[in-house]
Amino acid sequence: MALIVHKYGGTSMGSVERIKNVARRVAKWHAAGHQVVVVPSAMSGETNRLIGLAKDISAQPDARELDMLASTGEQASVALLAIALQDIGQPARSYTGWQVPVRTDSSYTKARITSIDDKRIRADLDAGRVVIVTGFQGIDDDGHITTLGRGGSDTSAVAVAAALKADECLIYTDVDGVYTTDPRVVPEARRLRVVSFEEMMEMASLGSKVLQIRSVEFAGKYRVPTRVLSSLTDPMIPLDEEMTSGTLITFEEDEKMEAAVVSGIAFSRDEAKVTLVAVPDKPGVAYSILGPIAAANIDVDVIVQNQSVAGTTDFSFTVHRNEFQKTIDVLTQQVLPAVGAKEVVSDAKVAKVSIVGIGMRSHVGVASLMFKTLSEEGINIQMISTSEIKTSVIIEDKYMELAVRALHKAFGLDQVQEA
Amino acid sequence: MALIVHKYGGTSMGSVERIKNVARRVAKWHAAGHQVVVVPSAMSGETNRLIGLAKDISAQPDARELDMLASTGEQASVALLAIALQDIGQPARSYTGWQVPVRTDSSYTKARITSIDDKRIRADLDAGRVVIVTGFQGIDDDGHITTLGRGGSDTSAVAVAAALKADECLIYTDVDGVYTTDPRVVPEARRLRVVSFEEMMEMASLGSKVLQIRSVEFAGKYRVPTRVLSSLTDPMIPLDEEMTSGTLITFEEDEKMEAAVVSGIAFSRDEAKVTLVAVPDKPGVAYSILGPIAAANIDVDVIVQNQSVAGTTDFSFTVHRNEFQKTIDVLTQQVLPAVGAKEVVSDAKVAKVSIVGIGMRSHVGVASLMFKTLSEEGINIQMISTSEIKTSVIIEDKYMELAVRALHKAFGLDQVQEA
Repeated sequence: MALIVHKYGGTSMGSVERIKNVARRVAKWHAAGHQVVVVPSAMSGETNRLIGLAKDISAQPDARELDMLASTGEQASVALLAIALQDIGQPARSYTGWQVPVRTDSSYTKARITSIDDKRIRADLDAGRVVIVTGFQGIDDDGHITTLGRGGSDTSAVAVAAALKADECLIYTDVDGVYTTDPRVVPEARRLRVVSFEEMMEMASLGSKVLQIRSVEFAGKYRVPTRVLSSLTDPMIPLDEEMTSGTLITFEEDEKMEAAVVSGIAFSRDEAKVTLVAVPDKPGVAYSILGPIAAANIDVDVIVQNQSVAGTTDFSFTVHRNEFQKTIDVLTQQVLPAVGAKEVVSDAKVAKVSIVGIGMRSHVGVASLMFKTLSEEGINIQMISTSEIKTSVIIEDKYMELAVRALHKAFGLDQVQEA
Repeated sequence: MALIVHKYGGTSMGSVERIKNVARRVAKWHAAGHQVVVVPSAMSGETNRLIGLAKDISAQPDARELDMLASTGEQASVALLAIALQDIGQPARSYTGWQVPVRTDSSYTKARITSIDDKRIRADLDAGRVVIVTGFQGIDDDGHITTLGRGGSDTSAVAVAAALKADECLIYTDVDGVYTTDPRVVPEARRLRVVSFEEMMEMASLGSKVLQIRSVEFAGKYRVPTRVLSSLTDPMIPLDEEMTSGTLITFEEDEKMEAAVVSGIAFSRDEAKVTLVAVPDKPGVAYSILGPIAAANIDVDVIVQNQSVAGTTDFSFTVHRNEFQKTIDVLTQQVLPAVGAKEVVSDAKVAKVSIVGIGMRSHVGVASLMFKTLSEEGINIQMISTSEIKTSVIIEDKYMELAVRALHKAFGLDQVQEA
């Protein structure tokens, strides 16, 4: 008997029929002798509907009241799923975040979980019930409702799994796992059976939308074995088959890891690049450039500063394309006069392509193969940024698909892997 | 400075524009120096939508989970109203039932309030905020969410007013007060400026839909001055005018009460009558008839048992017309064989008409005038039931409107009353 946490997204909870399917799948796990805790999202569209009402009333709705409002979506979901389980004869009970309680700090709309009490959940599990807990929300020390921000239900599920020391946390979603890259770009992309926590962290931060990065952080911090798998399969598929489907995020490197040095190719097409040319190179210059950018609430991604030549340096960074114009405004109006650079050059049409792999740590020449491959395709590399287990390049955006396909092939990701 | 509780129904909260109007009205009261607590219902249609989802999933949804589900409607409402108030510069904060907390017993879907903690509300009022509390719901001793049943927001509002020792509880609704009778039946019906608690109790139980009877009970138990008034007026009408509009339910009989002996005519057209003929008259016969009816969950209204003649008696009662067939089935299949009555005669087309007035206590001849009036119109009285301040008759339903109009005139209710 294992203790398993299931998480279902809004699409899986999107209609009465889908909720019944979730109930059938959950009951199947319980019937096989497992204890099951379920964390469902709000029905798809519901959170947007609620926030839309608030925005129709006020341009700047208060964050505390937004959380009070938005948290009702998940509360309705847990009750409906409990009703669906009971209807097929499976005892079940739902709890809100404050009933568990899931304690958080007081940062409304983006709270962080501080602790989860497992007493109540455990008592119901021991009584033979499936326990359903609202995702996305908690309660602060003053008894106010908080939410964890968009995608927070993934984080809730992993956090509940950590608190209960669950054997596995299953994230049911509308894709059937983590792929070597996006199959829409590279049809040969393969599903990874296993991915290391570190690789998943890089992929999540590099634009793979499969899991919210905070949930991966949580999984890593508490070493929660987490599996991403499809909610679109027949709910009654054999348990053995379901238990080995999808992609397992693992923390045991000496487990049977993927043989490949590079596990996946991540990319993001919504990047824009700016460069301050001939910045006088003195201490504090990076801060005097990025301070005003941060103050304008602009997220900076890749940052590159070259070796100084003749007392000046070129300083480049990328931002999300949506924030490109705002970035240019801050740079020309505030930064340029202050730091005395020569000019700002920019390119709103760049893309980021990254290779990710825990094997890069111990293998030399991985980055070289990347650069060689791109060069053979005639793709110019504009910026390079590396970490221990990933290398990212910024290239002209029209070459993005070509680069991803070439790298996918060069690193052998289209080969069927050995068991 | 007074402490005022406002209650708004689902229609008043039915759209973004209406929520903004509620906010304007509430802010006006606060600006005049009053402390205001608001208890809004769920947006109209929302509770039905939620319960509909549950019924689509299960024919018999669990009561605890229904409360978990339905309570989200009011939670969304309080947040939206807080946002609307803040948007026009009025500090406000919303609370759910469990946050106050409003404590109840554990009778899911029809819980009763046991206590309300006023500490949190008072602290916010003292800080200059309008406080918005969810109606309809509370929390039981084990921390489960409960709801008070349909119309429970009226009860919540009066209970909050009682806990805070509020100066007045204003129930904003889509009628502008309590009338001598339904104006759709008698165009001359007048709005009562004041009605006694006892009269309001009788009217609520006799079918007047203005206030839920439990809220009137609560108002009576804690002597909460409660006013029924219109939410359809311009939100910015002068406060003086608004404060004296509608109908005040009062507990001070020596206050300037309505001069009339009879205050109102109540009626209900959905009655059905059954009679067991020639029931052997022995102890316990009433229980052997009504026991199986109660066991079948049928509500009995008027009960009449005549003097026994030659050892047998006729036993009649009325039920809601929807339960007529079920009642006949129970009587013929279970009761008739058991008590040995001669037969069951029935009439599914009767109506109940009642005169209500606190003055009836000290005035003789009130019932006689009622009977004389009906007789002059040629209306046959089938059953009579009386209490200290009301007399009800059962008549053929096609005469109902005629009876109501004749009685309204006979008791002078169409006369403009003296101040």
